[in-house]
Amino acid sequence: MSQIPPQPVDLMIEARWVVPVEPHAVVLEDHAVVADGGRIVAVLPIADARAAYAPRERVELGEHALIPGLVNSHTHNPMTLLRGLADDLPLMVWLQQHIWPAEAKVIGPEFVRDGVELAVAEMLRGGTTCANENYFFPDVIGATYRRMGFRAVVGLPVIEFPTAWATTQDDYFARAVAVHDSFLSDNLISTAFAPHAPYTVSDESFERIRLLSDQLDIPVHLHLHETAHEVAEEKTKSGLRPFQRLQKLGLVNDRLIAVHMTQVTEGEIAACAAAGVSVVHCPESNLKLASGFCPAEKLRQAGVNLALGTDGCASNNDLDMFGEMRTAALLAKAVAGDAAAFDAAYALRAATLHGAQAIGLGACIGSIEVGKQADLAAVRLSDLETQPLFNVVSQLVYATGRHQVTDVWIAGQRKLAARELVDIDTAAILAKTRAWRERIAAA
Amino acid sequence: MSQIPPQPVDLMIEARWVVPVEPHAVVLEDHAVVADGGRIVAVLPIADARAAYAPRERVELGEHALIPGLVNSHTHNPMTLLRGLADDLPLMVWLQQHIWPAEAKVIGPEFVRDGVELAVAEMLRGGTTCANENYFFPDVIGATYRRMGFRAVVGLPVIEFPTAWATTQDDYFARAVAVHDSFLSDNLISTAFAPHAPYTVSDESFERIRLLSDQLDIPVHLHLHETAHEVAEEKTKSGLRPFQRLQKLGLVNDRLIAVHMTQVTEGEIAACAAAGVSVVHCPESNLKLASGFCPAEKLRQAGVNLALGTDGCASNNDLDMFGEMRTAALLAKAVAGDAAAFDAAYALRAATLHGAQAIGLGACIGSIEVGKQADLAAVRLSDLETQPLFNVVSQLVYATGRHQVTDVWIAGQRKLAARELVDIDTAAILAKTRAWRERIAAA
Repeated sequence: MSQIPPQPVDLMIEARWVVPVEPHAVVLEDHAVVADGGRIVAVLPIADARAAYAPRERVELGEHALIPGLVNSHTHNPMTLLRGLADDLPLMVWLQQHIWPAEAKVIGPEFVRDGVELAVAEMLRGGTTCANENYFFPDVIGATYRRMGFRAVVGLPVIEFPTAWATTQDDYFARAVAVHDSFLSDNLISTAFAPHAPYTVSDESFERIRLLSDQLDIPVHLHLHETAHEVAEEKTKSGLRPFQRLQKLGLVNDRLIAVHMTQVTEGEIAACAAAGVSVVHCPESNLKLASGFCPAEKLRQAGVNLALGTDGCASNNDLDMFGEMRTAALLAKAVAGDAAAFDAAYALRAATLHGAQAIGLGACIGSIEVGKQADLAAVRLSDLETQPLFNVVSQLVYATGRHQVTDVWIAGQRKLAARELVDIDTAAILAKTRAWRERIAAA
Repeated sequence: MSQIPPQPVDLMIEARWVVPVEPHAVVLEDHAVVADGGRIVAVLPIADARAAYAPRERVELGEHALIPGLVNSHTHNPMTLLRGLADDLPLMVWLQQHIWPAEAKVIGPEFVRDGVELAVAEMLRGGTTCANENYFFPDVIGATYRRMGFRAVVGLPVIEFPTAWATTQDDYFARAVAVHDSFLSDNLISTAFAPHAPYTVSDESFERIRLLSDQLDIPVHLHLHETAHEVAEEKTKSGLRPFQRLQKLGLVNDRLIAVHMTQVTEGEIAACAAAGVSVVHCPESNLKLASGFCPAEKLRQAGVNLALGTDGCASNNDLDMFGEMRTAALLAKAVAGDAAAFDAAYALRAATLHGAQAIGLGACIGSIEVGKQADLAAVRLSDLETQPLFNVVSQLVYATGRHQVTDVWIAGQRKLAARELVDIDTAAILAKTRAWRERIAAA
């Protein structure tokens, strides 16, 4: 009898449960995920994996569920340094008297870099492996994610007034294209246009974005229908709802990442489904800012690609995608008036594969499938708080805290090992965060 | 110069911050809480405390906030063993095809005891020091809490049909009074009548409860206006809303603990405020079962004593009062359409002092005040996830995870020390929980 020698590979993770997300709602028991060169090469029973592969590193997770790394599809991570600065205030007081003045005093490359460092540490400790970022200084942001080995889609800001990042419209676009080009060959960092919102971006800029997003083949990430006020205001101004205006401008297509969408008509839901628009639901931000209730279950039923985001730490106040999954699933039921709405498996899919699809990385991440990047999170389910265990996916969504994430990999590289960050100087990040706290509090 | 020698006391806890809850919204920096004989004897600056007291035990919490132990004002803790058994189902399918049949197979003294043990371990690890319990076999429940040194108000069930606990109405009442009497001199366990809900309890039983609750001086803890369906059904049956029926029966008074109240008129809110009714808001349960939205901010504005509860683990799926505070504060803003509604300090008060007041223990627990029981929880705020730190109370409500609770005391006894349960055999609880899982899954 001839024997095939085991194939050498980088990594074999043996888990009590593997939740691949695709196929949907499946839980594989006692399975291994095998990775090589940063990619997943096999998903198979542990015994078979041991026979077929000779891994350079083997990790045993006897009480854990291995899931795709979570994708935070809308965040402003530099603002992590503003966590809890100003809570429980009316929206405009919050923005105009607290957030904007604080930002004005501190914004710049250092603030952005240090905020992203803190955010990456927090995200990794919570099982998030990819962020759809939206803030100024995307060059610094991208470089920081890159240096930390974290996957991100970096937003290229466009807004109709001068900021610390750019002055004129031509300046915004020149900088956007330059930042895009600088990450062209990067395996972790990609870009998206990030026009702030319909009420702060002109038709002319939207037209340039439409052309350039086609040419560069990148998504368009914008706040849309966050509040009823915004919709009414646009209606008064242009006679159109913001969504209609975007339709007219040719932006309602499968590149569009529409964030918030608390105000949507049946027709708009159907249009999103037909055009392949992705909606990013940020339930906790919507609640905290009293923005409104996104009809998440209706969007799900219409087949819209619905992803989840935390929004920035000034309006959440965390980057906890486990919390966001749970809040999304709970809230959707109450909004739909149906306890069977927006089930746990769907919440996990929204927080992983749908996020990946929204940001243009659907072929690359978001599920545990052969050929995809090995972006993975291990969740310990043996804690008292997740016992007894009847249903793994239910437990992940409804009972698990993010502190039960023990290990995280991005492109096959271990980033969190037994809850310790790998190659990240936590003490230095905390010291810098404390220094920023003093500076911001003084300002 | 004469010197007063330091007074010997049991315990001195020195904390970076003390949040006493009363006075409201105050944060004391570098303060000590001094306890003796289970009671708080002083709250004062650390330096003064060191000069005045000679504690047998001194605990330094340099990065922590010390808060009153959280009060879970509505829970069915034996059901912790049913956590995640049946999620994402329509309410009646969930109850009739899953929860009730499962309960029917397992209910009895052992199930109740083991469920409470698991729940106590979970609650302590999350900073909860008191539960308002509502389940069958209150004798066993009370004895289990007592044995574990956990504070609880044990519900004395009344329901209009036979159960494993009692058969006839006379039987329910005889057992209720016997259980009440058995805990009369207990410093940790007290009792409340727990008629299930207006739709399962007769006028006659309510009348007996009114008389007995007056005589025994104990609260009446019941599910009320949980869903619109329940209100409509009663209206059809008796021509009254359930609240009106209770008014007629004389139960709308300051002993009433009305749980859920997702359906309330302005008149009912005013009546609750005038009569001193306590409302227990269970936001996560209401969302998950799609029961409706309690107008928590309106209740707050009317001055109703609003407390918070997790409800049972079959509909939550945890006993996390930090999560409940956060969800309550976020959801109330969206329901009220006001980002300034239900602020963090109010959420913490609802989860502590208002809970204590609701369950008849307002003079005994719920705040860090001299003379009250030393029921305390220490929360580490130095984690990445709670940095930077601008506002302690905001951080506790909006950014803190319950796993940041490091130490817990009940009546001055340490129950959690550096995240380890004291005198509780965690491994044994987990083993029993796994055994119940097999039995329940098989049934």
